[in-house]
Amino acid sequence: MNKQNHLEILPPRRSIIWDDNHIRFIDQRLLPKEYRIIETDDWQVVAEAIKGLGLRGAPLLGVAVALAVAATAVKTSGSSDKITTAIDGLRKTRPTAQNLFWALDRMSKIVEEAINTKLDQSLLTQSIVNEALEILEDDRNCCSYIGGNAQSLIKDNARILTICNTGFLATAGDGTALSAVYRAHDDGKNIHVYACETRPLLQGARLTAWELKQAGIPFTLIVDSAAASLAAKGEFDICIIGADRIAANGDTVNKIGSYQLALACEAHNIPFYVAAPTSTIDFKCMNGDYIPIEERPAEEVFNIRREIITPEGINIRNPAFDLVTADLISGIITENGVEKPLFM
Amino acid sequence: MNKQNHLEILPPRRSIIWDDNHIRFIDQRLLPKEYRIIETDDWQVVAEAIKGLGLRGAPLLGVAVALAVAATAVKTSGSSDKITTAIDGLRKTRPTAQNLFWALDRMSKIVEEAINTKLDQSLLTQSIVNEALEILEDDRNCCSYIGGNAQSLIKDNARILTICNTGFLATAGDGTALSAVYRAHDDGKNIHVYACETRPLLQGARLTAWELKQAGIPFTLIVDSAAASLAAKGEFDICIIGADRIAANGDTVNKIGSYQLALACEAHNIPFYVAAPTSTIDFKCMNGDYIPIEERPAEEVFNIRREIITPEGINIRNPAFDLVTADLISGIITENGVEKPLFM
Repeated sequence: MNKQNHLEILPPRRSIIWDDNHIRFIDQRLLPKEYRIIETDDWQVVAEAIKGLGLRGAPLLGVAVALAVAATAVKTSGSSDKITTAIDGLRKTRPTAQNLFWALDRMSKIVEEAINTKLDQSLLTQSIVNEALEILEDDRNCCSYIGGNAQSLIKDNARILTICNTGFLATAGDGTALSAVYRAHDDGKNIHVYACETRPLLQGARLTAWELKQAGIPFTLIVDSAAASLAAKGEFDICIIGADRIAANGDTVNKIGSYQLALACEAHNIPFYVAAPTSTIDFKCMNGDYIPIEERPAEEVFNIRREIITPEGINIRNPAFDLVTADLISGIITENGVEKPLFM
Repeated sequence: MNKQNHLEILPPRRSIIWDDNHIRFIDQRLLPKEYRIIETDDWQVVAEAIKGLGLRGAPLLGVAVALAVAATAVKTSGSSDKITTAIDGLRKTRPTAQNLFWALDRMSKIVEEAINTKLDQSLLTQSIVNEALEILEDDRNCCSYIGGNAQSLIKDNARILTICNTGFLATAGDGTALSAVYRAHDDGKNIHVYACETRPLLQGARLTAWELKQAGIPFTLIVDSAAASLAAKGEFDICIIGADRIAANGDTVNKIGSYQLALACEAHNIPFYVAAPTSTIDFKCMNGDYIPIEERPAEEVFNIRREIITPEGINIRNPAFDLVTADLISGIITENGVEKPLFM
């Protein structure tokens, strides 16, 4: 059944849904120029979208791979071999985001138990789908709780700096750091967001700007390296970022550029918070040095939306993330509350 | 006389020359895609090139405005009114680079003295041209001295981080920070440069990459916000930047992004140097708070080489420079030597 263009838009503040055993998601590569929905029950389509950043944002990656496994279970009528192939394939898409591995581990565990207990294939399918939908629902709820828990930190007239995209495009719900922004705005607080453009892939300029503009939340876009100068001039009151993986000691790996923001906030006594669901915490990582940092293709740097900006054939390093050590973090906002690093 | 395309290229490592009472310079807006020379004796052509960044780099701006005044003097046979109009017009092109005002002040002084002493117009013309050529020659020599003076700081196998473009495209000679790089390379030192791409206008990705590639000097391009993470991993040994204006206490205003580099170097005990001719020092500025920071058009941020990257109609802040306070600077490399800030 060709489900393409079954629905042209998703509900407000939603980037992924599960409908009739298919996944429907916004292809984020095309924003803000084009809003296009992809509908699929093929895990490889999801894997390719993840690799190419059509799907991105650590919590959303967890949800997307869970739903991709669920779609595979339905499509193959619960073939544990095929489900395992999907899990293994999805595991190889991106190395840093913890939520992706956390979700796949939950899926693997169900398949293993089903094999050990010789569970009927239709029951396995049902278990897998239920687990995936629970991950989806839990992520939505986590976003709401994170938004609520952040409110004690956001005063009226607050000017909030953020980087990358941490909104509904990065989660199954309202977002992580941007959930705090949405809630403050929904509660009637007068706020202003400074959005870092987020080189190389410009998730701030493309995605966060698109979300905030739609929501009517006042914001100003800056180049990433202007943040330190704004900090020096006292032009923002708090920085809230998301996280791709948080080590057991609170060290946080997030989008490249996060570390320079943390240093700037430290130098000027500006509170620096990380907002993330606890599914982002990797309890097996003692500290940030154990978190793998993905190096992505040079082309992301030299080719900006199809415009080549550099001489040909030069060396480029493109680390996608950096590490903010726990000592620079004022607190981590999760669905459970706001806690100091070293809280685990 | 139509002098367009009189010569298709300038001599190696030269971005501006004076030839037959005309100025010939590389139009830097088109690099690295196209190498085009503009030849003119019209100060307004120079003023427009400066505003549009066809000519940029603080020392080069000083040289370019001096030559533009000289061309005006020749063309108007020493009309002090017309020369003054040119000086006033060139003064309004860009507010931050000290060298521009320093050079124009030298020109103004000659005109004033000529008026006071009722100097013959042909003698005024000769004085103006001589002064401009002295500024040009001095800048070339300053670049050489800066390069030489920096060598005590650059060890064999040094990995040098820099931002923006501070090479022959930014001066009348070999550059400021990049002059140190050229000299180290010419002296046979094994060096590696990390070049920050320098958003929004990508002077690092476009111009520094172009210079270093031509010179065969090994380098790696990074996005600006990756520098802090390289500092944390010990991936470079020294940072050398240029300067647009240095206050009397050593506070330095330079390309936006310089401050985050200084904070990263401070956090990881990496030496952080400023390289600039003394014409960049504004002795009338007590400290950096008195230096005007140009805010440039939002379009430079949202329109990357004609590709629109953001939703339409959003707020953008585009400060072109930021301030590195003297406490973060290990030393200032001038034509006179390497001195600690507060050296004046």
